[in-house]
Amino acid sequence: MAPSAVEVINAKRDGGRLTDEQIDWVLAGYTAGDVADEQMAALAMAILLNGMDAAEVARWTQAMIDSGEVLSLPDVGRPLVDKHSTGGVGDKITLPLAPLVAACGAAVPQLSGRGLGHTGGTLDKLESIPGWRAALSLDEIAAQLADVGAVICATTPTLAPADRKLYALRDVTGTVESIPLIASSIMSKKIAEGTGGLVLDVKVGSGAFMKTLPHARELAATMVEIGTAHGLATTALLTDMSVPLGRAVGNALEVAESVEVLRGGGPADVVELTVALAREMLALAGLTDVDPVEVLASGAAYPVWERMIAAQGGDPAAPLPMARHVVPVVAQTDGVLAQCDAMAVGIAAWRLGAGRARKEDTVQAAAGVRLLVDVGEQVSAGQPLLELHTDTPQALPGARAALAAGLVVADPGSGPAVRPPLLLDAVRP
Amino acid sequence: MAPSAVEVINAKRDGGRLTDEQIDWVLAGYTAGDVADEQMAALAMAILLNGMDAAEVARWTQAMIDSGEVLSLPDVGRPLVDKHSTGGVGDKITLPLAPLVAACGAAVPQLSGRGLGHTGGTLDKLESIPGWRAALSLDEIAAQLADVGAVICATTPTLAPADRKLYALRDVTGTVESIPLIASSIMSKKIAEGTGGLVLDVKVGSGAFMKTLPHARELAATMVEIGTAHGLATTALLTDMSVPLGRAVGNALEVAESVEVLRGGGPADVVELTVALAREMLALAGLTDVDPVEVLASGAAYPVWERMIAAQGGDPAAPLPMARHVVPVVAQTDGVLAQCDAMAVGIAAWRLGAGRARKEDTVQAAAGVRLLVDVGEQVSAGQPLLELHTDTPQALPGARAALAAGLVVADPGSGPAVRPPLLLDAVRP
Repeated sequence: MAPSAVEVINAKRDGGRLTDEQIDWVLAGYTAGDVADEQMAALAMAILLNGMDAAEVARWTQAMIDSGEVLSLPDVGRPLVDKHSTGGVGDKITLPLAPLVAACGAAVPQLSGRGLGHTGGTLDKLESIPGWRAALSLDEIAAQLADVGAVICATTPTLAPADRKLYALRDVTGTVESIPLIASSIMSKKIAEGTGGLVLDVKVGSGAFMKTLPHARELAATMVEIGTAHGLATTALLTDMSVPLGRAVGNALEVAESVEVLRGGGPADVVELTVALAREMLALAGLTDVDPVEVLASGAAYPVWERMIAAQGGDPAAPLPMARHVVPVVAQTDGVLAQCDAMAVGIAAWRLGAGRARKEDTVQAAAGVRLLVDVGEQVSAGQPLLELHTDTPQALPGARAALAAGLVVADPGSGPAVRPPLLLDAVRP
Repeated sequence: MAPSAVEVINAKRDGGRLTDEQIDWVLAGYTAGDVADEQMAALAMAILLNGMDAAEVARWTQAMIDSGEVLSLPDVGRPLVDKHSTGGVGDKITLPLAPLVAACGAAVPQLSGRGLGHTGGTLDKLESIPGWRAALSLDEIAAQLADVGAVICATTPTLAPADRKLYALRDVTGTVESIPLIASSIMSKKIAEGTGGLVLDVKVGSGAFMKTLPHARELAATMVEIGTAHGLATTALLTDMSVPLGRAVGNALEVAESVEVLRGGGPADVVELTVALAREMLALAGLTDVDPVEVLASGAAYPVWERMIAAQGGDPAAPLPMARHVVPVVAQTDGVLAQCDAMAVGIAAWRLGAGRARKEDTVQAAAGVRLLVDVGEQVSAGQPLLELHTDTPQALPGARAALAAGLVVADPGSGPAVRPPLLLDAVRP
């Protein structure tokens, strides 16, 4: 006899395990519309509060994969390896990373989404480049991987449709914050896209989804375990997200900073993380005799960027959009920049127009925040700490309000202010 | 700033208390359709798993009352007192109880519902009487209370609409089994109907919603606390529901048994419970100098029944419907009837046509089970233990299957088989 939705909900509600049959049935039924939104919401809350064990999470992930198709990329002549970040403020790493890893000899099939809330989306960033288009066919993806070695494009609606539907539901029902559900959501899409190796960048801190290292470690371990169970070589780095990554937060601003990195410059933290993730990806691809630091320094990654952008209709030489209003936020006193909170900066950039409140919203290509001072630097009263960029000046008071508590200039005598270490830990199978 | 649904869900999900403002907002929003079914389902699951304290339950109940109107019955010249049962198999007690308590001098405004699942509904039972109608206006209710002293009629859709909507949602989302939600559902309707006193019959055992005495005691205490907090004099009896109440299970069958009781006969357990609940109700009504045993013996309750039925268009003298098929279930061996499980009998009666699987279903007036032997009685192989009544003979195998494990004839040497005590405990403020 087929399970009923109430039986499945009750099993998890009462602290039991879901059987393979129950998991398969409830996710297939939800995708088909036979299990109602309210039933899945109750189940998601029961999962959030009562958990799932490793075998349940593996099966849940498989059932989400099975709800759609699995990309079958042809042999592109290079090992396939991908990266996924759990999302942070100023996290543009995919942009320099994909061309760099391609320049080192691997192929990077990065199927991405758009941003929602205070973290930006990779596609939103690239769409600030005139002409660039996110939607590619499977043939175009394969051809570009063989030719350029790197593709950053929109994920297709045929991959893990159960996840898309479930994520939208979780977003409005207070059931996002479940490690089994987060892990299976990410991994189902990444496994369905058919990559050969996967490096996870699990962010930790105020601007990240995981606020503490133990939670981030648990999420990373769950995802590495899922990948391993599905035969996908997976490793994870745990990286700091208590301050923004780099100095640019916003779509075109982050593209510009990524180009700086590809040309051998850019902020030290962006370079450090790009290189660290590249090393992990190359290790999974079996390309251990190439050093990404040398490749970056050689300038070989920048032409890959140009070809990657051009292959999707973008003009890498075109000027990026500039905001109509750029206003500074200045220090009120002399002192040391003691805090530059990632969440505060993320919300400010979002309010300036860089992000979306709802899926239907559009984003401003040029909006965002440009940081001018690093944590730990001396500043004088009146000195600009950062710039607010926007086309909609009515957004400025809200952005300033978001920054109020997150930007702290302290008396130099109040102790050392330093940026926390960027690389916190790694999780490998 | 108004709360958002996700904030309210998150507060309970994370083990916190809901504020008065959050409770008022979420229930008003749900009634109006601004809070979605999936959001209320997630909240209901969080409440089920994380609980609500006494103050939250009191406010939740008040917000459900406030979602609709409160009946304001005029002075009918007698104290108003009502009874509510949490539902059991063969539980027809309202039928003899309301006329008996009216004959003792109180007025009983019993607003009832229809049955769903294995427990029957009071309205379904009375509708087996030719001509009887459940729907009354407020004026008709008041007039009948003043004249006859007892009304059993359909509840109006204007009382606690939030509860009606929430109950339908809980039914399909595995969130029925929450003591705060059960208690507030029952009490919101009873408080909104404007009674002056309330006696709760909380059933315990296989055929009841609460399977164990501690759970039943907790539910009773929660409801008595809510009633007291709302100024409604409330007491509760905890009564056994491991075997069916009386010997008749089914709509017309239970009406016939109720009439036997009102005429001074009927099964001992039905009489015992009717009298015990009448005493509780009379105590709340301040009518302590009248003995319901004497009133029942005097025959004074039966004419009240006749007038109560006639006032709603029913013919108390008309023959009740008879099932087209009546077949016995016989003992397979000599022995003692050791078990007659309430749930098994309830499901059998339901399958025979006495109950509904879905709200839209109709019920058969004559379908049900008539028990012929009490637990503890000696039986011989081939002796009928009970009769199955139905108009749809194709239902017979399903009814027999439901009874298979619930009807046990044991070797007389295997120890005493006795009906458990009926009255288990009482909860008073």
